[in-house]
Amino acid sequence: MPGIFVEIEGSGRHCHVTRETLDTLYGAGFELEVKKWLTQPGQFATPQKVKVTGPRGSAEISIIGPCRKADQIELSLTDARALGFADLPIRESGDVAGSPGCKLTGPNGEVDVKEGVIIAKRHVHLTPEDAEKFGLKDKQIIQVKAGPGGGRALIFDDVVARVSHEYATYMHVDYDEINAAAISGEKPMGEIL
Amino acid sequence: MPGIFVEIEGSGRHCHVTRETLDTLYGAGFELEVKKWLTQPGQFATPQKVKVTGPRGSAEISIIGPCRKADQIELSLTDARALGFADLPIRESGDVAGSPGCKLTGPNGEVDVKEGVIIAKRHVHLTPEDAEKFGLKDKQIIQVKAGPGGGRALIFDDVVARVSHEYATYMHVDYDEINAAAISGEKPMGEIL
Repeated sequence: MPGIFVEIEGSGRHCHVTRETLDTLYGAGFELEVKKWLTQPGQFATPQKVKVTGPRGSAEISIIGPCRKADQIELSLTDARALGFADLPIRESGDVAGSPGCKLTGPNGEVDVKEGVIIAKRHVHLTPEDAEKFGLKDKQIIQVKAGPGGGRALIFDDVVARVSHEYATYMHVDYDEINAAAISGEKPMGEIL
Repeated sequence: MPGIFVEIEGSGRHCHVTRETLDTLYGAGFELEVKKWLTQPGQFATPQKVKVTGPRGSAEISIIGPCRKADQIELSLTDARALGFADLPIRESGDVAGSPGCKLTGPNGEVDVKEGVIIAKRHVHLTPEDAEKFGLKDKQIIQVKAGPGGGRALIFDDVVARVSHEYATYMHVDYDEINAAAISGEKPMGEIL
């Protein structure tokens, strides 16, 4: 039986911001520019950056558009260490309750974000059609094998499936996970086990 | 049946140098100082650092003692990207043939290393006694489950077992792998599957 494969994309550190936060950071009514459309429908990389200040340091981090209902700053554990965030929670996007905050600084002003700094939980976005074809349900925890990656094959053992008609079917991990599996090349594929 | 567990240690980037290289970098007859004994018998962290220069940048990297038969610079893929090394091979320690070189700079001089820059292949050091107890052989490829790590459990699927009476029983991975599994806490354990 042929395996079930999904393309694995690495997500670099990035921010999502609310309309209100963007007004403060970049000026009232400022519109995020589209630098590149991402694989998830309607989502886009922008040339806009924001300085994220943590307990020990700061970094310029790109904003992903469009605006969302809550500010969210997604870091890798490597980034978190550099900025001095200890024990950041590993969360699904949108689940920021009780996570640490940070200061965001843009060209027009700054915002003290009360919560929203997280490590993204690895996940597979699925269209309802693909989920049905693969026999997967929303929120199901699955295993995905990545590699061989030149000697670093691994099995991601706690991957959440997320099903929505707003999605395209792709797996998302961060660059610590990409590097651990050594799959930084062209269109790495993961096998759902 | 109870599982077989080994402690997982994260190895930061580091260098091993030959006696000859150390003579050039730090002066003839210079002796590496012991900052901290490591878990592998006879191996020690030192306060001595060397500047490693790659195609796009450089970094101060600690030397691990004692001197070895060949220069070897072990980086993570995160480090490799920062220094501009593309496609570093993933190798077992000591297997540096054909790997990229770099420039090493110390307080007394510099050395053009012809080869020796690698990404360490994840491995488990085993005493012969533990290997026999666990039913493992030298060079055997095994799986080790790490985590749960707060939501990042994973199975390292290409781990080489290395058996020697010179070893203590520990698994070694780099910090990309530690971060991918979110096991940076106290004494993380891996289960040999």
